[in-house]
Amino acid sequence: MNERITQLPKLRDESLLSDASIDRIKNHIFELFSTSDNTKFAEKEIEELVSSIIEDFLHDTSVSTNLELNTIAQQFTNSAIPTVSSDVGSYIDNLADNVIIHSIRTSSPRYIGHMTSALPYFFRPLSRLMTAINQNLVKMETSKTLGIYERHALAMIHKLIYNFSNDFYQINTQNNESTLGIIATGGTLANITALWCARNYSLGQKEAFTGIEKEGLPVALNFYGYKGAVIIGSKLMHYSFEKATGLLGIGERSLIKLPVDCNSRIDLLALQRTISECRALNLHIIAIVGIAGATDRGAIDPLLDMAEIAKEANVHFHVDAAWGGPVLFSEKHRHKLAGIEMADSVTIDGHKQLYLPMGIGMLLLRNPQMAKVIEKNATYTVRKDSIDLGKRSLEGSRPGMVLFLQAALNIIGHKGYEFLIDEGIRKTQYMAICLRHKPEFELLVEPEINILLYRYIPKLWRQKAATGTLTKSDNQLINQFNERLQNLQSQAGHTFVSRTTLEIAGMPIVALRAVIANPLTTEGDIDSVLEDQIKTAAKIAVLS
Amino acid sequence: MNERITQLPKLRDESLLSDASIDRIKNHIFELFSTSDNTKFAEKEIEELVSSIIEDFLHDTSVSTNLELNTIAQQFTNSAIPTVSSDVGSYIDNLADNVIIHSIRTSSPRYIGHMTSALPYFFRPLSRLMTAINQNLVKMETSKTLGIYERHALAMIHKLIYNFSNDFYQINTQNNESTLGIIATGGTLANITALWCARNYSLGQKEAFTGIEKEGLPVALNFYGYKGAVIIGSKLMHYSFEKATGLLGIGERSLIKLPVDCNSRIDLLALQRTISECRALNLHIIAIVGIAGATDRGAIDPLLDMAEIAKEANVHFHVDAAWGGPVLFSEKHRHKLAGIEMADSVTIDGHKQLYLPMGIGMLLLRNPQMAKVIEKNATYTVRKDSIDLGKRSLEGSRPGMVLFLQAALNIIGHKGYEFLIDEGIRKTQYMAICLRHKPEFELLVEPEINILLYRYIPKLWRQKAATGTLTKSDNQLINQFNERLQNLQSQAGHTFVSRTTLEIAGMPIVALRAVIANPLTTEGDIDSVLEDQIKTAAKIAVLS
Repeated sequence: MNERITQLPKLRDESLLSDASIDRIKNHIFELFSTSDNTKFAEKEIEELVSSIIEDFLHDTSVSTNLELNTIAQQFTNSAIPTVSSDVGSYIDNLADNVIIHSIRTSSPRYIGHMTSALPYFFRPLSRLMTAINQNLVKMETSKTLGIYERHALAMIHKLIYNFSNDFYQINTQNNESTLGIIATGGTLANITALWCARNYSLGQKEAFTGIEKEGLPVALNFYGYKGAVIIGSKLMHYSFEKATGLLGIGERSLIKLPVDCNSRIDLLALQRTISECRALNLHIIAIVGIAGATDRGAIDPLLDMAEIAKEANVHFHVDAAWGGPVLFSEKHRHKLAGIEMADSVTIDGHKQLYLPMGIGMLLLRNPQMAKVIEKNATYTVRKDSIDLGKRSLEGSRPGMVLFLQAALNIIGHKGYEFLIDEGIRKTQYMAICLRHKPEFELLVEPEINILLYRYIPKLWRQKAATGTLTKSDNQLINQFNERLQNLQSQAGHTFVSRTTLEIAGMPIVALRAVIANPLTTEGDIDSVLEDQIKTAAKIAVLS
Repeated sequence: MNERITQLPKLRDESLLSDASIDRIKNHIFELFSTSDNTKFAEKEIEELVSSIIEDFLHDTSVSTNLELNTIAQQFTNSAIPTVSSDVGSYIDNLADNVIIHSIRTSSPRYIGHMTSALPYFFRPLSRLMTAINQNLVKMETSKTLGIYERHALAMIHKLIYNFSNDFYQINTQNNESTLGIIATGGTLANITALWCARNYSLGQKEAFTGIEKEGLPVALNFYGYKGAVIIGSKLMHYSFEKATGLLGIGERSLIKLPVDCNSRIDLLALQRTISECRALNLHIIAIVGIAGATDRGAIDPLLDMAEIAKEANVHFHVDAAWGGPVLFSEKHRHKLAGIEMADSVTIDGHKQLYLPMGIGMLLLRNPQMAKVIEKNATYTVRKDSIDLGKRSLEGSRPGMVLFLQAALNIIGHKGYEFLIDEGIRKTQYMAICLRHKPEFELLVEPEINILLYRYIPKLWRQKAATGTLTKSDNQLINQFNERLQNLQSQAGHTFVSRTTLEIAGMPIVALRAVIANPLTTEGDIDSVLEDQIKTAAKIAVLS
């Protein structure tokens, strides 16, 4: 077999390194990893360099440089891994000049187009601490206290939603048999995990059948006598539900997307009718999905009615509150989420309205036993009798993001979150008023919380827009105009909103999309974003 | 419907806050988020506090405190989110005293039981930078240069495996139509993504059938005329493959786990026989899985033979090189992975032998078009014509971990990684020699790379062990002894190895498991770990 080994590509033609260069490499590596005084000194210098890069980055008020992506991309096509290593300082200088400088200033008060905002400063030192201790939450032997700390944080979020008795939390928070929640890297994995649980729970072990997780979907449907399996929600469901249905083997076609009413809430009659139809067709309903803060417009489904319908139908009720979950902190607005406490599972994103750094979402489970249907074991880790968190999660090894969650819950606190939520909604109302008063704009959807959809109406069409007599071809031209406007605004880098496409009266309508969550965004910043758009629009008129 | 709103649990009984306390909360929040001089000063103080916590943590040579998990757990059961917020300094002091201090010192040279090691220092400042810029890689509008930088890093790892021509990388690295790889949070997601691709690619669109992703597994099997679908690998496959088969709807039972030979490599005859049997039974083979560095013992499958068998059978060949992938950096050892360059997909973990902080794995794809079978779109993000990375990935929003990968490739460099790999294997050989010479121990598996399985043999059984005459009940008692030994050693916190269970001659054998990857681990540290075990074993003898 030896002669075939040469098929493995040879990476380098160099002859073997001299002893001197081996020594150099050895010293380089030890200096990078060691805790010696030399390394400590080098680290301190690099910390200072990074501090100044961060300060430059955060103090710049623009959203980005105007360098085009294609131009940047051309610099990054050489695919060889450097043989000789860079020293840390030069590498970081280079990184600052070529990469960081062209990054998106998600913290800018005038970047109000995506679900990423400024962060509290304490996450910066905490990130360093998280990397320094480098725990792996898959297993207590690689995390110890952090595993316990994670269970504790999840209990706090669980209580925010379900508010069970203190006894319930005393019994379940640190109990290996219970899973109050699962931390994942984001809402997508949380949603997938929820539906994985729902599928396995509803098509579980029964008599001689050992359950869908072991025997697979075709055998499960056959055993239970179903013709297929579906998941039902409104057409505003996040695209992670398409991933979930694809992954779980039921197929995207089995994701039933129902129409919404004029407030962007699921049509309840359609929901009831669909449940009856599925029953008549012998289709198993794995879950009904309610939305608390639709990604494109922030709409909230009538969760209480949906919960009652789901209960009546004996179907798992999942609420995707990735965006809207933290509205529960607000005395003033939490009633909008009424019914969430009846959900079997709830997704909340940490890196959205909990203001945590990117990479943390979570799934909360009403029934602490439910996650057992996804339990896995391995002899070298997460053994059957172990208390390891990795037994019941989609991911394996994962970082101690719980440090961020706990810090935020303790340092921002309930009242701090309430203020953040209330302020975002208040400023969104301010923006809505501005839009209603400016002839250049049309508010497309009445904002439910802090996401707002609108569009620019070029002068030519304002009369028709005001009287509701725009034709399909008018709208097509206005759509093109708004796409161009958003591209130019984004490209110039002074301010930013995103865009989406709505369906209004059967017509696709391109919408500008503002997400107002950054506490540093003032009314003046909102004015500036709109002024920037008016100026940019004027340029388009000249160009076209 | 209003009267039902009261069903939502009320969280607090307090009356509304006074204006003064609202002002206090407002100021607190602005200070946390702002870039004012006050905040800058506060941040600097916290950075110093965190520096001293990190220094204390990293300089302590023990693995952990001996405080028991249960005792720690009792402190963390109060599930109320604090109403009033902590100030940052007190919170972090508290964190240091109650959480960090009892964390696991994964960087300790005597912590040689899991796949986590010391990290180069530059990741600490870089973590802070990553959080400061807080990019979201799902979309270019939230990441810009970092998206390009990620494509570039993946091309470098792709080239390390496949070494295609420079033209290939010029064309594909920054091309929106191509996906050379996908960054995920770890090997588990990378493996699941690989099999998701393999499933969808092999049961894809054909004639009137729109493909399994849309139509689901039962319809796909029916259309293609299969009775079921399977995935085949050795019994040493990582438990993420059970997750994958469960999730993807084929069921854990469809994961065919073949026996291994005396070198822990898949039995090739069994593989060929199984393929024929599946064909005869009309079972579709989604993928054949090769292992490059089995989690429990580091064994490497005969990848070249497997690749040829898979090619012959026209089946997707996936290599799980989560652990072993970076062996490719070593001129001396890379021949062990010969055949990996024929794999359709390869998993490599960043937070294992690329020495990156926890939370990065990756999937590399031979065919840059393959990932199109998992593509998703949404109007508010990752639109069909967009260049967004989130179009083709299991996860949605995710952090800029690529900063770590690029820094390491540039600062450690090819030669630095070669040194790290060679050293780990060299020291593992040293440990194997020690074990062979100490009567207290038995080496259970000849190490292929840098994972080593052995056990302690209490005096009573040494004679029988030496002559190979241990009975089943002898082994059961030795198993109990080794379990206890590992627990006590782990609990005391001076040194650490993990444990697993092997099957030898049909008997379950508890093994101690050393993973030698930390460049700071010296031969002296290895001696200390073994001495600690001998001392601990003596205590067990006294106790029992």
